[in-house]
Order: sequence, then structure tokens, then C-alpha cells
Amino acid sequence: MTADATQSTPLVLVVEGSGGDRPPGVPPEPSPARFAFAAGLSDVRRLLPEADVALLWDFRSGVLRDAWPAANRLRWVHIAGAGVDATMFPELVAGDIVLTNARGVFDHGMAEYALALLLAWAKDVPRTLALQAERVWQHRRTDTLDGKRLVVVGPGSIGRAVARLAASFGMHVSAVGRRAREDDPDFERVHGGGDLRRALADADYIVLTVPLTPSSRELIGPDEIAAMAPTARLVNLARGGVIDEDALIEALAEGRIAGAALDVFCDEPLDRASPLWRMPNVIVSPHMSGDLLGYQEALARQFLDNLDRWVSGRPLRNVVDKRLGFVPSEAGTPSARRPDAGRPGT
Amino acid sequence: MTADATQSTPLVLVVEGSGGDRPPGVPPEPSPARFAFAAGLSDVRRLLPEADVALLWDFRSGVLRDAWPAANRLRWVHIAGAGVDATMFPELVAGDIVLTNARGVFDHGMAEYALALLLAWAKDVPRTLALQAERVWQHRRTDTLDGKRLVVVGPGSIGRAVARLAASFGMHVSAVGRRAREDDPDFERVHGGGDLRRALADADYIVLTVPLTPSSRELIGPDEIAAMAPTARLVNLARGGVIDEDALIEALAEGRIAGAALDVFCDEPLDRASPLWRMPNVIVSPHMSGDLLGYQEALARQFLDNLDRWVSGRPLRNVVDKRLGFVPSEAGTPSARRPDAGRPGT
Repeated sequence: MTADATQSTPLVLVVEGSGGDRPPGVPPEPSPARFAFAAGLSDVRRLLPEADVALLWDFRSGVLRDAWPAANRLRWVHIAGAGVDATMFPELVAGDIVLTNARGVFDHGMAEYALALLLAWAKDVPRTLALQAERVWQHRRTDTLDGKRLVVVGPGSIGRAVARLAASFGMHVSAVGRRAREDDPDFERVHGGGDLRRALADADYIVLTVPLTPSSRELIGPDEIAAMAPTARLVNLARGGVIDEDALIEALAEGRIAGAALDVFCDEPLDRASPLWRMPNVIVSPHMSGDLLGYQEALARQFLDNLDRWVSGRPLRNVVDKRLGFVPSEAGTPSARRPDAGRPGT
Repeated sequence: MTADATQSTPLVLVVEGSGGDRPPGVPPEPSPARFAFAAGLSDVRRLLPEADVALLWDFRSGVLRDAWPAANRLRWVHIAGAGVDATMFPELVAGDIVLTNARGVFDHGMAEYALALLLAWAKDVPRTLALQAERVWQHRRTDTLDGKRLVVVGPGSIGRAVARLAASFGMHVSAVGRRAREDDPDFERVHGGGDLRRALADADYIVLTVPLTPSSRELIGPDEIAAMAPTARLVNLARGGVIDEDALIEALAEGRIAGAALDVFCDEPLDRASPLWRMPNVIVSPHMSGDLLGYQEALARQFLDNLDRWVSGRPLRNVVDKRLGFVPSEAGTPSARRPDAGRPGT
């Protein structure tokens, strides 16, 4: 590469994950950009001044903020995750740097995960496994999802994928979103945020897929939990911070709701001392709901596709509205559906 | 009731389940028939001579055969179960007594159960629960059902319900049935019985919903198991007798297939000495896959609906073809679909 080409070819700074975790297949061959890899803050500080683009491979990373004064020519930041909360620092929000995320990659996997949890409860799977371990034959009648009411808090692309699968089981699916409406193709009704408690009160199951933003922090607090039915079960696939975890623990301990399945927590990994691990009506999983086999390859491909767009001057996909803190969802847009969603039988 | 009315009003003999288990809401008020309840063989022998109809509330019951010489005026036998194998004795098969079953009641519940198992495997739910019990945070990547191949052995009303739910996850669903065809609305392809091994060889997941008949006994034997991929997982919701259980145990012990979820067994309850209880790649459940909360009420309503038909001379629903041993399935008939299957979003 000549000196001229070097000057005109953009530099992408890849902020690695822990343990040197890098996006597979990056840089591609041939590549529309130069790549530099940063393992930690000192690398980022050294390399950031020349970077046009930053790819945050670990969506939890805070190093970009710490190195921010060195961002001389940075134009675009891509986060290899769906939730951008960890990177929404004021300097980035205020500036005109474009922020994109991994919207779409996790949709179907997380929807499957949500249904796996709902069905595990309905079909009493944990008890079946426990009885099996004791070699006890104990017939039980189980529940159906058919006709049950699911409320999805956060009708973005993930919430919509959950809704469509749930509807195929005959569930009645509504959402709580920014704007109340009854003409949404994926929900029987979308409640506005002001109706959150009323919507929760009617739910058999609640799935949280809302982005963590200043307005969603502890969205599910003592009053919202108190509004839920004693038979209600709550799934959190969003961020730990959208729930008042202490209030939830108290409600679960007192049996004021029937159960919770938590994939995300205020502090991760969840501390071994947390009572959540041992609560009989709680399922704890380690922030993995969307992480399918091959998901890292999908994340890398998605970034490289956007890089091609950027280099050739086409519009980027998945541009975050930095005031909102997420990519606004347009019902029924192609990116919100699986490519093959129109096939017969789905 | 006058003596004349008594003579013209049919008598339904209800053969109770164990522990005096009786159909709820029977007799109805008003009732189109007289009812007598039999707790055991001696009751059946005493009451059968006057009975026009027999309702076998426990589908496993063998007392009807033992009392058969006393069936003087019996015209119709209803079995409150989907599988009629326990009642297909030669005298009943040979005669012109009509046999009906509970086809339809279990469809959606069993389909949900099958998906609960497939998703438990795909999402590694048993391991998640085991790690939780140890308070261990261990991220894993999980599998998707999207694009995976499901083979349903037995494309009756239960198998079709499984297929439709599986298709909503993006699975490729084929079946093995009596007649090969490619124009079935619920399956990408239906293989004839002669192609069973070839179909099994292509499967990621196999769900057995085939009735137990002389021709399906040990349908899944050593050669069929050998045809399966080492990654294949097998779900049996049918009858234990459709699998050569010893051959399956051997294959599971040697890791020749990836796993099995068994709800039915050659002998039930499953003996505490069976190695199946403790195999790490096996999920054992106690013949409960279709038994939803309220299923007994649904079974009773279904019988009473047929009784109204019988008394008023209309055709009975769910008439078993006694040569086949099941109710022949017509693709897309109303009884094979949930009443609300046409609603938007399903």
C-alpha cells in the first residue's frame, strides 16, 4: 500500500474483548480499510488519534470514554452488541459521531430463549429434571401457553421476534412502548409508557427487551412489581439495570409474583452471595440469551457489511438515535424480520 | 324416569380410573342417557350386559376384554385417550362395535411439550439449572432451531400440531407416514414407511407421535437407531412399545445419538432400576406430555358431545379405523387444527 493509499484508506480501531477476543474474519481479504487492534486502554490511547472508525468488540467496554480526548478524527463507532448503554457517555452523545449497533443479530436467538423459558415453566421442566434425579415417577398436569397473555416491554426488533413466536403458540401478545397504538402488526395492542402498570397487571408472562437508558433505569420498581399478578412470571433479557433488583428479590422471596428468569443482572457475573441463585422460583442464566453458536461470525459480518457501506458512501444500517439510546424500531421493516420470515408455515 | 323411558334411554357404562377417578361433569344435567359407574372387573361384569355404550376413562384399562362375554348389547366404546392400543383386542376389532377416541384433546399440549424439549436442548436449559444450583456463572453459546431438520414419525393430529409449531421457529419439518407425498400442508415432505431409515438419517430432531399398532411395534429398532446421526435427538411422546428400549439404552450409553426425551416407556411407571433415569443425555418424564390442566374436563366434554351425536343419530366424531388402530388423519380437516388456528399472527 502506497503512502497516498494509506492516507485515503480509513483506519478501523478494533477494541478487543477480554482475553484478546477478536472478531473472526477481520480484517477481510481484500479489505476496504486498514485495521489496528487494541487490547486495552493504553493501546486505545495510542491508536485512537489515527482512527476513523472504532469497533467495540466487547459491548461492555468503557475504554473509549477513557481515551476520548484522543479521538481526533473518529467519525463512526460500532458496538458489537444490541444494548449500547455502556457506551452512551455524554461526549459521544453530544457530538456528531455516528453510532451503530448489532441490531438484528440476536433477535431470533433471544426469541427462542424467551420461549424456552416460558415453556420450561408451563411444562414444569425444572421439576421434571429434579424428580428424574430422584428417580421419582410423579404425574403432573401442565399449563399451556395458548390463550395466555404476554406483555413485551420494549417492542424493538428483539421484542417483535419474541412476539411473533409467542403468537404462534396462541398467546395474546401486547407491548409497552413509547407510543400507544392498536395498528401494530406484531402486537394486539401497544401501550404507552404511562400505562405500564396497567399492562403489567394483566400479564401472565412479562418479557423485558427494553434498552437501558436514563428513562428505563429501574423501570420495573416496587410499584410495577406490586402491580403484577401473584401468578405472573417475569423474564429479563434486557439489562439488569431496568429492574430494581432488591425489590424483585423481596417480591420473589415473599411469593408476590410466581417466578423470574433472569439472564442479566445489575452486576455481572452475578455475585455468588446473591440470593437469586438459590431461589426456587428463579432461573439464573449468565447473559447468554442471544449468543447462538456462530454469533461472533454474524456480528463480524454485520460490521463488515456496514464498513462497505461507509467506504462507498451508502447509508449505514442500525444507526442509534443517541438521544433515545437505541435504534428506533419501524414495525415491519426488513431488518426487523428474519430474511426467510415469509416462508410458508411461519 | 318411567319404565318405558328407562328401556329406551341408552345406558353408558363408565369404567373408572384407578382410585375412583371419574369424568368430571358426568352425568350431565339434563342427560341424554343413563350412566353406571364401574370401579373394577366385577363391576364391569355385572353392569356390562345392560350397557349400550362403554366409556373407558382410563385408556390403559384391560377390564373390557376380560368382561367381554357379557357385552350383550354394547354398540359403541369410547376411549378417553389418543392411543387405543391397550383396547385393541381381537374380539373388539373383529366385531361391528364402533370405537372412538380422544383425538384432538392432546394436540396442542403435546406440541408445546415437544417444543419445550427441543428448546431445552437447544438452549442448554438442564445445564443452566445445574450450574445455577452450584452458583456457577458460565457463559455458553447455544443452538437455534431455525433451519434445523425435524422428522415427525406419525403425521396424525398430534404430529401435525408439532409440525406447525416447529415450522414457526424456522425448522424444516418432514414426516414419515403411510403414504409418501409432497403436497401436504403441514410437512415439506411426507416419506413412506419404507423410507424411514433414510428420513431418520437426515434428522437433527425426531419426534415420535405414531400410534402403537402391530406394524409400529419396535418401529425404532437397532437399525433405525444406527441410521440416526450422532448429533440426533429423539423425543418419544407416543408409546414405549414403538421403540426397542434396550437398543436405545445401548445407543445412548455409547453416545451413538446425542440424546433422548422419553415420556412413555415399555413398562409404566418406569422401574427405579432402569438406567434411563440416570443417563446424562436422557430426559425422563412420567407420561404427561398431553395432560394439560383441565384436560379431564376436555375429555369429558368431548365424550358428551359424541354422546349427543349418538343419541340423535348423527355421525360420531373420531371413529377409529380398527384395522389401522387409529383415526385416519385427513390433512387440514377442522379437527386437526385448533379452532383459532386461523387468527392473525399464528
